[in-house]
Amino acid sequence: MTDKNPAATAATFNGLPAHVWPRNAARGADGVVSIAGVALTDIAERFGTPVMVVDEDDFRSRCRDMARAFGGPEHVHYASKAFLTRTIARWVEEEGLSLDVASENELRIALMADFPAARITAHGNNKDDAFLRACVEEGVGHVVLDSDQELERLDAIAGEAGRAQHVMIRVKPGIEAHTHEFIATSHEDQKFGFSLASGSAYRAAEAAVKAANLELVGLHCHVGSQVFDAQGFTAAADRVLELYSRIHDELGVILPELDLGGGYGIAYTEDEQPLDVDEVAHDLLTAVAKTAAELGIEAPSVLVEPGRAIAGPGTVTVYEVGTVKDVTVDEGVSRRYLSVDGGMSDNIRPALYGSLYDARVVSRTVDGTATSTRIVGSHCESGDVLIRDAEHPDDIRRGDLVALAATGAYTYAMSSRYNAFNRPAIVSVRDGAVTPMMRRETIEDFLALEG
Amino acid sequence: MTDKNPAATAATFNGLPAHVWPRNAARGADGVVSIAGVALTDIAERFGTPVMVVDEDDFRSRCRDMARAFGGPEHVHYASKAFLTRTIARWVEEEGLSLDVASENELRIALMADFPAARITAHGNNKDDAFLRACVEEGVGHVVLDSDQELERLDAIAGEAGRAQHVMIRVKPGIEAHTHEFIATSHEDQKFGFSLASGSAYRAAEAAVKAANLELVGLHCHVGSQVFDAQGFTAAADRVLELYSRIHDELGVILPELDLGGGYGIAYTEDEQPLDVDEVAHDLLTAVAKTAAELGIEAPSVLVEPGRAIAGPGTVTVYEVGTVKDVTVDEGVSRRYLSVDGGMSDNIRPALYGSLYDARVVSRTVDGTATSTRIVGSHCESGDVLIRDAEHPDDIRRGDLVALAATGAYTYAMSSRYNAFNRPAIVSVRDGAVTPMMRRETIEDFLALEG
Repeated sequence: MTDKNPAATAATFNGLPAHVWPRNAARGADGVVSIAGVALTDIAERFGTPVMVVDEDDFRSRCRDMARAFGGPEHVHYASKAFLTRTIARWVEEEGLSLDVASENELRIALMADFPAARITAHGNNKDDAFLRACVEEGVGHVVLDSDQELERLDAIAGEAGRAQHVMIRVKPGIEAHTHEFIATSHEDQKFGFSLASGSAYRAAEAAVKAANLELVGLHCHVGSQVFDAQGFTAAADRVLELYSRIHDELGVILPELDLGGGYGIAYTEDEQPLDVDEVAHDLLTAVAKTAAELGIEAPSVLVEPGRAIAGPGTVTVYEVGTVKDVTVDEGVSRRYLSVDGGMSDNIRPALYGSLYDARVVSRTVDGTATSTRIVGSHCESGDVLIRDAEHPDDIRRGDLVALAATGAYTYAMSSRYNAFNRPAIVSVRDGAVTPMMRRETIEDFLALEG
Repeated sequence: MTDKNPAATAATFNGLPAHVWPRNAARGADGVVSIAGVALTDIAERFGTPVMVVDEDDFRSRCRDMARAFGGPEHVHYASKAFLTRTIARWVEEEGLSLDVASENELRIALMADFPAARITAHGNNKDDAFLRACVEEGVGHVVLDSDQELERLDAIAGEAGRAQHVMIRVKPGIEAHTHEFIATSHEDQKFGFSLASGSAYRAAEAAVKAANLELVGLHCHVGSQVFDAQGFTAAADRVLELYSRIHDELGVILPELDLGGGYGIAYTEDEQPLDVDEVAHDLLTAVAKTAAELGIEAPSVLVEPGRAIAGPGTVTVYEVGTVKDVTVDEGVSRRYLSVDGGMSDNIRPALYGSLYDARVVSRTVDGTATSTRIVGSHCESGDVLIRDAEHPDDIRRGDLVALAATGAYTYAMSSRYNAFNRPAIVSVRDGAVTPMMRRETIEDFLALEG
């Protein structure tokens, strides 16, 4: 931490790094940042702050990027846990992608948005009978099986309904991918899936093949979050394909699909570079084809499940700056605390995962000197920090609007009412028009649950 | 982690450690755990799971314990951020305690419960004008000032309303208390308060004394969370009392109150012992009187702000067990994963703070062998863990009800709708009767915010 950094200039602070900010974000001649032609100042005035602004074209274009890279929209399942509203489900549907859900409510929301059940995949380590029954009755395309008990229960439920439910088996491939490296490990100490190494994945596949009311169509694995190259995915695919080969040889079954999950990394800060979707897809598909050929099996169709990579980058959260306070942290070293009118209730990720974000003043240009700054929320908790350590210009003042970029994924989805805060409004913007997506909560929403 | 622990017996698992579980919790002859005479199985059947059960007498008795220890209910402010509903506010009011709020919504909820504004204290590092105005107009007893800007704004707002607002100054005493030790430090790198060491706390006090529409009645400090003895509190009090002395000498003002905040530790696990409220209160009050006498000033009336210590221990969260899965974590070592039908949406504390909890089967007695067990939630995230590493009997099975104890504080208050989960129902129990406090959310509550 340095007190003043002369190298950081006004140009630095007024920029909007294109790999972090929404594709249609731009700072106008008046200094105000617009997204898709709509000034964030106008949105803040109309909807209040904090407010989340979703660049609809950004979201849709990332759907198309993924579809192109992986050979068509039918190969891409949007992971709705990252961010789901009926509007989001509509966009995904219109772009031709499929959808992952991880709870009965996520399924219901998608269905209420007229998302075709056949294009929905159901996940979860602990699906209850109601969820499984809903999957069968609504005709959900795939159920990803996570335990022997679930396999038996789903078989029975599908039998009662007189249906053959398409299923995948979730496999623990013993690969963990973290950002730029991956670890091949026997470590399988997590709640999801069947172990590849112990043979339980094969036994599950065998049971699914033999089950009267299930049709096994593929295997599923997930290697991690915020992955930036193809290595971890291909290493996992290599291992899982060996099981395809065994299933082919021993059970006489050709599995048509291979679901390699999500984890496609995005840039949260200027220093980071997002995963190159085209390059990773190319490397991954090439590797799968090569390994399948070596194993003498038909290469399965590869499916992927991006959530963050589609929903994350196109959304910003706009806050109003309140208290500005300089704190002496050590002899002669100070830190400026900027308080904003939200915090860990609308974005728990910095507190929960130590996540980083890029913040900019969006209501005007700044021209101050770089100052060590912490951006904190308004909650009654010391750990309520949005950006722990960054340089910001020293002319940021009360009333300025500051936005955090790339807040689309796992923010609203995990938002709370801590300190009885109202969850923020969400609007989408496109071609100069703004559309409300979620209204701001009110105290009445809270009180409605009482008694 | 050991695979099997023969030392742990059925008696161990069927116990309900009195220092962790609600005061009126008991396991009946049929093996079912009741609270205040109401079987948790009956509550689960009527309200579904997960469900939170609040032992009303436990909550009220802890209010009285605090009041007795600190010399009367007027000395104790319940920190509503830990857990607030209108019912909770009513209980606090009826027990004669005061109330802390940290947002305008918390204030509104308290007022809607007919909590007298004069017994409410308002906190927050970033109170906006609307919150300050509400405090003044409603006649809130104390506003705890957190910045120079706030002091000026509140003075102006009180002036407009023609009122003299009672205020305290939040002081950073340079003491941090962690469980059994405290650290005297110059480290003041946090968003709350005015620095004692730099003199800014004195200058704020001087400004408050001189402000036309403010009346300074005391200083406030907060040393930490989950503190277990008086040392940290008394060290902070010693430092802050020096400022009382200076304010007396230089400004000619006798401040009648000293608010030492919260942080009173509770036991989350059998191994822990809760802070002894009587002992700590005695030590603290004795130390304050002694230091005041040494400084030649009148000892101020001591106020405290327990939240967790009142709300935490009397509440349990009841889950139903779903998937049971044994995972090989190393050569010959396995861990059992018990999935329950809630998780990080209803209790983020294990994921956020690494918090520990005590879990027991509450629907029957168990008699299995101790097995290394992890209790996980149903969210689509590997980090969705409720209890990371514990021994549980190996006869726990699908359909059993498991409850986590001491879940009253910072669980529902921080709950989310991750994976579109419905927040749980909350009921209170007393003298054999059950009263709904918050109904379970539904998908309609979520959809009501759309568009």
